[in-house]
Amino acid sequence: MKKVFIIGCGLLGSSLVRIIVKKKLAEKIFIYEKSKLNIIKIKRLKLPVTIVKSLRDGALNSDLIIFCTPMSQYKGLILKINNFISPKTIITDVGSAKINSSKIIKNFLKKGVYWTQSHPIAGSEVSGPEYGKDNMFKNKWCVLIKDKETNIKHLRFLDSFWKKVGSKTVKMNSEKHDKIFSITSHLPHLIAYNLVKSAKDYEKKIKLDLIKYSAGGLRDFSRIAASNEIMWRDIFFDNSQNIAKVIDIFVKNLKDFKKDIKLKKNKSIISKLIKAKRVRSQIIKLKQDINRPDFGRSN
Amino acid sequence: MKKVFIIGCGLLGSSLVRIIVKKKLAEKIFIYEKSKLNIIKIKRLKLPVTIVKSLRDGALNSDLIIFCTPMSQYKGLILKINNFISPKTIITDVGSAKINSSKIIKNFLKKGVYWTQSHPIAGSEVSGPEYGKDNMFKNKWCVLIKDKETNIKHLRFLDSFWKKVGSKTVKMNSEKHDKIFSITSHLPHLIAYNLVKSAKDYEKKIKLDLIKYSAGGLRDFSRIAASNEIMWRDIFFDNSQNIAKVIDIFVKNLKDFKKDIKLKKNKSIISKLIKAKRVRSQIIKLKQDINRPDFGRSN
Repeated sequence: MKKVFIIGCGLLGSSLVRIIVKKKLAEKIFIYEKSKLNIIKIKRLKLPVTIVKSLRDGALNSDLIIFCTPMSQYKGLILKINNFISPKTIITDVGSAKINSSKIIKNFLKKGVYWTQSHPIAGSEVSGPEYGKDNMFKNKWCVLIKDKETNIKHLRFLDSFWKKVGSKTVKMNSEKHDKIFSITSHLPHLIAYNLVKSAKDYEKKIKLDLIKYSAGGLRDFSRIAASNEIMWRDIFFDNSQNIAKVIDIFVKNLKDFKKDIKLKKNKSIISKLIKAKRVRSQIIKLKQDINRPDFGRSN
Repeated sequence: MKKVFIIGCGLLGSSLVRIIVKKKLAEKIFIYEKSKLNIIKIKRLKLPVTIVKSLRDGALNSDLIIFCTPMSQYKGLILKINNFISPKTIITDVGSAKINSSKIIKNFLKKGVYWTQSHPIAGSEVSGPEYGKDNMFKNKWCVLIKDKETNIKHLRFLDSFWKKVGSKTVKMNSEKHDKIFSITSHLPHLIAYNLVKSAKDYEKKIKLDLIKYSAGGLRDFSRIAASNEIMWRDIFFDNSQNIAKVIDIFVKNLKDFKKDIKLKKNKSIISKLIKAKRVRSQIIKLKQDINRPDFGRSN
């Protein structure tokens, strides 16, 4: 490629810059970034990019445009780039929910132009270009959305692009995507935020200093609950219907657990705990986590 | 000390053996272990202990007895050691819930003999003596229970003992203990088991293979949900009343979150997410977790 344009250069955007540079996937990388602080950071990091002040300068003649902003910014950005893109421009994003983005794209992207959605399953609780790294996507899944309107040529290009940055790719439609990630990612984040909030509420209620005893479990949840609030608000709002459904399943199961505990139903609870334990082995076998006790953090 | 007797030599028991040996805290260590597999492992590990087949041989003339079994075994073990202990014997345990154990001790331990409860906030999702390590308790809290009946001399001895194995100690009564850990440890484990169960239920319902996309959040929970089921059943049953209360707070908050998401209440949700995020900084400041993105696992 001659020209890549990355809109939003935080954790994921800057990771893309690093790996594109490392693998020499493009001759030139252009960056558009709203945050002045991030721009200072990008300059300090000496990332070999051209920082543009207008979307026009970035989008014109780009081979590939990657949206790495919170999803709530897509609409505004689309309206601004519409004049500078052509059917040849490959456009993608890294957003974590897809049905709502599909609607925005359909409603606001210039007719005859294509946006092919990506979702690399990568990230962490920290934000900002200083935390980006060139192995961010290595061996991670990247979901490519294939719907009726998908431009197959662009899809093939992106499939190859994500493989070059180190990901394993998989194709599915946006409905399937949003269902799967409502339970494997969105609900876990919501639960983590909710548990931390509940701990603070309880701390106030019983007037006991308890956060300092977080090492027995709470700390794991607090990591996830430290994730970027704008990004997660957007995800929760965008995938609200699927999330509402899995919240209901979760609450129903939690009430069953409560009953088991109250009535000391031994067989029922042991069966639940053993079944949950098996999933951990499955996750490790599927290489979705490292096989070291305590994530290896205490060694 | 001349003689320490450890009942139950799994993850924590064998970690105690290792650190007691390393720090030369006792001349002799005796072990009682019910599991034949664990005995084979202990022998293979060449831990310098005397494995006894009867509790009598272990308990007689011990300076310190430490219960490292699941809490549901306390009663049966107490009835068996009652004849071999004296008011001088210092007895403790490492159990994670305290009110119920206090009752068992009060009801079944020989009169005039003392049991001073400990709870080191240490452990991991793996079980068995092969995972023990001498730094298991290093810089971790160890809660010592101080109730009306507590023998102050024994409490002082144990305070010094846990400090020697590397822990920071804190004293509180069993009611306060069980309240604090219901939210910082017991509910997080229950939630983790429940989330993994809900993911499996949802997988079945929507007939989509989803565990392989666990890297976006679910995998963190699955680690905790891989913890020993007997130990956790005992904790859930023993601390059921406090756990029931925090489940209620959690479910109420989750319903509020669901409402925010459904009605797209921007201010309300952003405020919740930011507040939860702050707790992570607090936890790291309190040295309850490491300050590396993603627990440092992906580097």
